[in-house]
Amino acid sequence: MEGGRLEKQAGGRSKVMNRVYNFAPGPGVLPVPVLEQLARELPDYHGTGMSILEMSHRGAIFTQIIRETRDLLRELLNVPETHEILLLQGGGHLQFAMVPLNLLGAAAEASYIVNGIWSKKAAAEAGKFCRVNIIGTPSRSQIPHPDSINVPNDAAYLYYCMNETINGLEFNYIPSCPDCVPLVSDVSSDFLSRPIDFKRHALVFAGAQKNFGPAGLTVVIVRKDLLGLAGDTCPTMLNYEVHSQSGSMYNTPPVFCIWAANLVCKWLLNEGGVDVMNERAATRSKLVYGAIDKSDGFYVNTIDPSARSRMNVVFTLREEALTELFVKEAGDHGLVNLKGHRLVGGLRASLYNAMPVEGARVLSEFMADFAVRHG
Amino acid sequence: MEGGRLEKQAGGRSKVMNRVYNFAPGPGVLPVPVLEQLARELPDYHGTGMSILEMSHRGAIFTQIIRETRDLLRELLNVPETHEILLLQGGGHLQFAMVPLNLLGAAAEASYIVNGIWSKKAAAEAGKFCRVNIIGTPSRSQIPHPDSINVPNDAAYLYYCMNETINGLEFNYIPSCPDCVPLVSDVSSDFLSRPIDFKRHALVFAGAQKNFGPAGLTVVIVRKDLLGLAGDTCPTMLNYEVHSQSGSMYNTPPVFCIWAANLVCKWLLNEGGVDVMNERAATRSKLVYGAIDKSDGFYVNTIDPSARSRMNVVFTLREEALTELFVKEAGDHGLVNLKGHRLVGGLRASLYNAMPVEGARVLSEFMADFAVRHG
Repeated sequence: MEGGRLEKQAGGRSKVMNRVYNFAPGPGVLPVPVLEQLARELPDYHGTGMSILEMSHRGAIFTQIIRETRDLLRELLNVPETHEILLLQGGGHLQFAMVPLNLLGAAAEASYIVNGIWSKKAAAEAGKFCRVNIIGTPSRSQIPHPDSINVPNDAAYLYYCMNETINGLEFNYIPSCPDCVPLVSDVSSDFLSRPIDFKRHALVFAGAQKNFGPAGLTVVIVRKDLLGLAGDTCPTMLNYEVHSQSGSMYNTPPVFCIWAANLVCKWLLNEGGVDVMNERAATRSKLVYGAIDKSDGFYVNTIDPSARSRMNVVFTLREEALTELFVKEAGDHGLVNLKGHRLVGGLRASLYNAMPVEGARVLSEFMADFAVRHG
Repeated sequence: MEGGRLEKQAGGRSKVMNRVYNFAPGPGVLPVPVLEQLARELPDYHGTGMSILEMSHRGAIFTQIIRETRDLLRELLNVPETHEILLLQGGGHLQFAMVPLNLLGAAAEASYIVNGIWSKKAAAEAGKFCRVNIIGTPSRSQIPHPDSINVPNDAAYLYYCMNETINGLEFNYIPSCPDCVPLVSDVSSDFLSRPIDFKRHALVFAGAQKNFGPAGLTVVIVRKDLLGLAGDTCPTMLNYEVHSQSGSMYNTPPVFCIWAANLVCKWLLNEGGVDVMNERAATRSKLVYGAIDKSDGFYVNTIDPSARSRMNVVFTLREEALTELFVKEAGDHGLVNLKGHRLVGGLRASLYNAMPVEGARVLSEFMADFAVRHG
């Protein structure tokens, strides 16, 4: 173990603002230059004599920011003109209702792949509005085999969660369904960390608070031909078509969150875009999974290797009693927020776009050292 | 006219951050100390090595902030224990749906007082879910006479908008209804500027972006015995009871907005609380209405004097052609965002809690001077 590195980490932590390495699952780490720009420009936006928080969302400045944010997303993810980009509120949980309310149309059933807590929640919410056909092989350790996914032609849509944040599972393939069945995905926790094929995906949505910005913003990218299917009793604010027609300004949008997301997009482009993020995600997660795999069973990750999430590395200690000590010692080394989700326990290292590769390296070194000392 | 004051205003504007006087209707002006604290603490929250934007909302720090924000609101508005305070997303527009979805129960009809654009919108949305009984005397220049409000015993609730932001009307009395009918009010634009009688009001809601904080946060204060009436097809995220049971943490809340609102509450308490805000609102609005009334008809406000809003002073120029020049000259004097709402035109000065009384004085002096020069 490279003690020097860790000692430096423990003593001085990062030089920039005394930063820790923050492995929180979301709200999660944001790029330092974005945080610094937000702080610098918050009290007086570009010499206007007021904060951006105090400006009309229909004024020239914010109108330009929201338009540019959509354009930047389109560029970063190669979103084709067939798809609309919406910037909404309410998080993934509200999308669990909005997806069926907007896409069911005359259909009576939708298909859900359930292999973790988030897809399970989404399927339960859809059950309020239609029959739900659970397909694939629900499991906490693997994603279903592609051949096990058989979607009926009359399904309103096929839904899956690309990355299960709590369970640490990530799809490494795109589920197939009949051409007439729209494919929908919750991409909250791997949004902007990998390309998305919009020829295959009719709708994706993401809560901002993992890879895109502060909590309070939700992005929906939806094929335009699917707008207008919502019924009369769909609340107006839950109707994608309404938001599409108003450029995501049907009502006052979450101005600060959109401004922050705009800066995150610019940071991403500056760093090299989604392909670079994709490579870094591979590098970071390999470092941490490496520490697990080389630990002779001291650390345990039961996920099928092909389905391991690059965003959320979930693991336990063979000796569960050491978990608390692990969290404490890691904290002393400036490695924080490693506790697993309250529903599953254990440990979890979330490795979002803004986590420096160095952070994953320091964590993997700490893990190796901890295993030697306590193994 | 005190030319010196205006010259100082035009030349140097406010000393704090080169501030303008911002009369935007919402998002609107925020207290300078709050903006400065947000900027100062944004990159590294109290030496934790991370921004509050990056922290788990279930961690000790944010949990304390959201709890304290509710406590501060309870203190500021004397909210009794009969009522629950919810911090949500989606703005007033989402409340237009949530109110009927949560309060209708087995009732088939709700009563709405419609006397402006916001109450009209609310009534239209409720029409998706029940019969809507429009009562009172819809008018753009007055609120209905108390005697004209007759609510049937079987109405699910009586709804009114306490202050019509676009039309510049504010209720100066509490509409009466049978004891068995809950009274609901949209208090978005005069929230925290006057006391609210919770013996009479069963539910009030407010978008934060006028008097409470940045856009992206909505506060709902609801009588606890009304929770649990939502039907099975109510989206989970639209169910007050769900948010009540989870302390407004059913999903990730808009962390930044709640933090900012927390600081606004502390600023309000420090300034003397809602009673002081109530007095200042009277002082500010008297200054601007005074400039209108003393202008010999150069400025026109058609609202019945007893129903004039203290928050949003709406007026036109007798010579409409001068409107653009008024806006331009006011801007040159550091008095900005005075254009009326795009739906009604004219001019509007929004005078929220964070607008210094001095700002209203400078505006009234500018108005008098402009009238002399162009009258």
